[in-house]
Amino acid sequence: MKKIRKALISVSNKNNLKKLLSTLSKYKIEFISSGGTFKEIKKLKFNCTEISKYTGSPEILGGRVKTLHPKIYGGILNKRNNKSHKKDLLKNNFSEIDLVIANFYPFEKILTTTNNHSKIIENIDIGGPTMVRAAAKNYYDVTVITNPNQYDDLIKELNLYKGRTSFNFREKLSEEAFSETAYYDSIISKYFNKFTKKKFPKKKTIPMNLIEILRYGENPHQESAIYSTQKSLNLKQIHGKKLSYNNYNDIFSALIISKSLPKNTGTVIVKHTNPCGVSALRDQLNSYQSALACDPISAYGAIVSCNYRIKKKLAIELNKIFLEVVIANGFEKDALKILKRKKKLRLIDANNLNTSNLSNFTSNFNSILIQSPDLNKFTIKDLKVVSKKKPTSDQLNNLIFAFNVCRYVKSNAIVIANNKSTLGIGSGQPSRLDSCKIAIEKMNKFQPDSFMNSVAASDAFFPFVDGIETLVQSGISAIIQPYGSIKDKEIIKFANQTNTVLVFSKTRHFRH
Amino acid sequence: MKKIRKALISVSNKNNLKKLLSTLSKYKIEFISSGGTFKEIKKLKFNCTEISKYTGSPEILGGRVKTLHPKIYGGILNKRNNKSHKKDLLKNNFSEIDLVIANFYPFEKILTTTNNHSKIIENIDIGGPTMVRAAAKNYYDVTVITNPNQYDDLIKELNLYKGRTSFNFREKLSEEAFSETAYYDSIISKYFNKFTKKKFPKKKTIPMNLIEILRYGENPHQESAIYSTQKSLNLKQIHGKKLSYNNYNDIFSALIISKSLPKNTGTVIVKHTNPCGVSALRDQLNSYQSALACDPISAYGAIVSCNYRIKKKLAIELNKIFLEVVIANGFEKDALKILKRKKKLRLIDANNLNTSNLSNFTSNFNSILIQSPDLNKFTIKDLKVVSKKKPTSDQLNNLIFAFNVCRYVKSNAIVIANNKSTLGIGSGQPSRLDSCKIAIEKMNKFQPDSFMNSVAASDAFFPFVDGIETLVQSGISAIIQPYGSIKDKEIIKFANQTNTVLVFSKTRHFRH
Repeated sequence: MKKIRKALISVSNKNNLKKLLSTLSKYKIEFISSGGTFKEIKKLKFNCTEISKYTGSPEILGGRVKTLHPKIYGGILNKRNNKSHKKDLLKNNFSEIDLVIANFYPFEKILTTTNNHSKIIENIDIGGPTMVRAAAKNYYDVTVITNPNQYDDLIKELNLYKGRTSFNFREKLSEEAFSETAYYDSIISKYFNKFTKKKFPKKKTIPMNLIEILRYGENPHQESAIYSTQKSLNLKQIHGKKLSYNNYNDIFSALIISKSLPKNTGTVIVKHTNPCGVSALRDQLNSYQSALACDPISAYGAIVSCNYRIKKKLAIELNKIFLEVVIANGFEKDALKILKRKKKLRLIDANNLNTSNLSNFTSNFNSILIQSPDLNKFTIKDLKVVSKKKPTSDQLNNLIFAFNVCRYVKSNAIVIANNKSTLGIGSGQPSRLDSCKIAIEKMNKFQPDSFMNSVAASDAFFPFVDGIETLVQSGISAIIQPYGSIKDKEIIKFANQTNTVLVFSKTRHFRH
Repeated sequence: MKKIRKALISVSNKNNLKKLLSTLSKYKIEFISSGGTFKEIKKLKFNCTEISKYTGSPEILGGRVKTLHPKIYGGILNKRNNKSHKKDLLKNNFSEIDLVIANFYPFEKILTTTNNHSKIIENIDIGGPTMVRAAAKNYYDVTVITNPNQYDDLIKELNLYKGRTSFNFREKLSEEAFSETAYYDSIISKYFNKFTKKKFPKKKTIPMNLIEILRYGENPHQESAIYSTQKSLNLKQIHGKKLSYNNYNDIFSALIISKSLPKNTGTVIVKHTNPCGVSALRDQLNSYQSALACDPISAYGAIVSCNYRIKKKLAIELNKIFLEVVIANGFEKDALKILKRKKKLRLIDANNLNTSNLSNFTSNFNSILIQSPDLNKFTIKDLKVVSKKKPTSDQLNNLIFAFNVCRYVKSNAIVIANNKSTLGIGSGQPSRLDSCKIAIEKMNKFQPDSFMNSVAASDAFFPFVDGIETLVQSGISAIIQPYGSIKDKEIIKFANQTNTVLVFSKTRHFRH
């Protein structure tokens, strides 16, 4: 237990001070402060010593140097049970500072309001983090408050222990203090990396905000939480059971496809992070039904992502099967009412989610693989027709659709499509030929009459003729694939022999 | 261009100072320093003013407060083109400090040498990061050096510009300085989180060290790098082409399985992050050949991970097909010689890789999903026989082997095994039934005579009887799966009707 006698207060966020100061006063705690905080404390009618008076050193450089003084740091950093420290204090006429209440210049916030580099730099707090770090280091004796949301806990603690704080409380606050300073400098560092276009600095820290602790991870014996590099996720859950780790994982797998589809168009059905049906048809009911037709069995318990605002007609249709999550760019009022009849069904509004500023990373053992995302939409200018037979406009559109879906299916990936809807999806196979067979089997099982004019896409080149051969034998009339195999010529020859349209894409799109 | 007149030097790591100080002296730069750095500078026979003399304020608290003084921070933080700042300096008799050379108490290093909390805390540097942050904030006018590996660049710069530094140079150093302070506090924060058992703090930063910038990411149009939460990867490449993003990704997918196998036993073959063959046979040649037999076609261009030290006999065998990477717990000398005949083949020694202290995270849009890893080995105590027919000891061993592999195959995952080797692996399907079919097809294609006494594992429960029915029809005699389906009773009934061994595992093992 440590009695608090003197508090140093320097806060950028001046909310909720009054109640705290009242409690501190109750326990006869003296205040030291400066600048705006000093004025605020006086305005609230509490006694307060100005720092420059306390240290005998004037505030200089327009406030850039206020608290950086040995009297302040001697007061914070001295070990109370250390005789030599005590002697140093006496000799220099310094006294103990037992409580530091500080929060920093709003560097992160300023980034959202200006691009002016000088203004941004001016918001790098020097004094604040130093006070907090010193107090947090010396938490055996000193209490440190770094966020207004800790005020209530401090008030409770002081009332409970009559102006004292407990060791455990100070330790917790110290942990939170270093979490604040680490986060603060990580945001500054991230800003500088971006400003100087440094993509891969030698030392990198990723600052993240806890969104929620999840019930468990991919499996019940794994602990889990979801964080964001922003303050919130930009996903709004408006109904249903709590989202699980696997829900989130599937939601993101679905949204990366939805956001790649034409604006306000397209339906994606995802199960185990792979799509089991995608359609980019304009009419929302048609689009959903076509996506569902690709694999109506796997769709049981799936996640449906609608890249549009859901209307009543579709809501009725969606309610006919068991779904875990429905995502949309908003819901019409009457649609929402219908969907909400299913108490557990999770409804997500993803209208505000954007795909800017992304960087992907994944951890393995103690390593982290970081890469820029694979987001550029694939269009007609990214492909080259290499067969004698040229694609019809319909085929071309379906080839582009199929390839855009294929890049978001786990490799090796094959997508068969027609009428801007998938007919078969082969995912996650070590062998490309096997992915072809899986896609064909889906088509033959659920939509056996649709192969006419259907097209296929492959996320990477065919290493042999066998894959393309299998597709053509099943009735596929046009194929798109990246180039680069030593068998490219043979493959083109085979396409010409079988009167198949063959299109090469310039880019490969592995995704694992 | 800024002329440097005065340098503040305070370094914990005192290496390579001499050459730097000589250059600084050449340009008549004055030194201010304290403590151990002061002594070192004097020992190297350079003039130096002690900080306490400079500020007129004594060093107190056994060195805890040395540099935290307005004369120091006025000197660093003043804007040279600001008249009011100039006036403040004159009035207080402060002068400009143009160069800060500092590195911090070795907090990260101390963690590797002691568990003593007080000793660890004593290594939280307060003065150092403050000087560096102040100098980095004021980089328009001040040069900041935070690492001995920047000394040569500074020497070059000073020689090039005759005692001056350029704006771009100072900006780059400032960026690196904030990267250092962010990293430093992130390590402290991580330590405190661990110490106070805080698993998911509100603000979290992940400190990482750049291992290498990769040629590209999963695809050539994606930029990429690999980082580590440690100083190195604990993987040693001893031969071959540079590792790519996809190599690393596959290597980790292989090693997570290898490290789960019995000590110094077992071979894993991976393609596109999924195993296409695993064997835990004792003899290394047998083990490799059995793993290969599972899908010899997919093994082309694969990654082979050997959980043992590779001998000559196996090296000869490995050289018979094209492989991207061979991983092992070391290589016998003559084996290495044989493998090195393939100039491009990447050889990795993973003997030092351990699976402790892991936490998995993956980014999606701007969110990060974090979870504890799924590492506990599955053993006999984690299962329950629920069928009337009891497994033989052989079946039981194969069931445990199959389930241990299955948990590292992408969901939905089915693994068929016999003789401690996989016969068929079905991965990455939205439908569990499809994964069954893929696994069976592999077995029937490559080892059609092996179904006798073969067993199957499923990473999650069968939602219907159809999956287990398909497996039994293909000749599988024993099945292991987690429990929890509403059809569990029906599935047990089916097992009893068909005289199949059915074992329930207590845990589910999704992996996406």
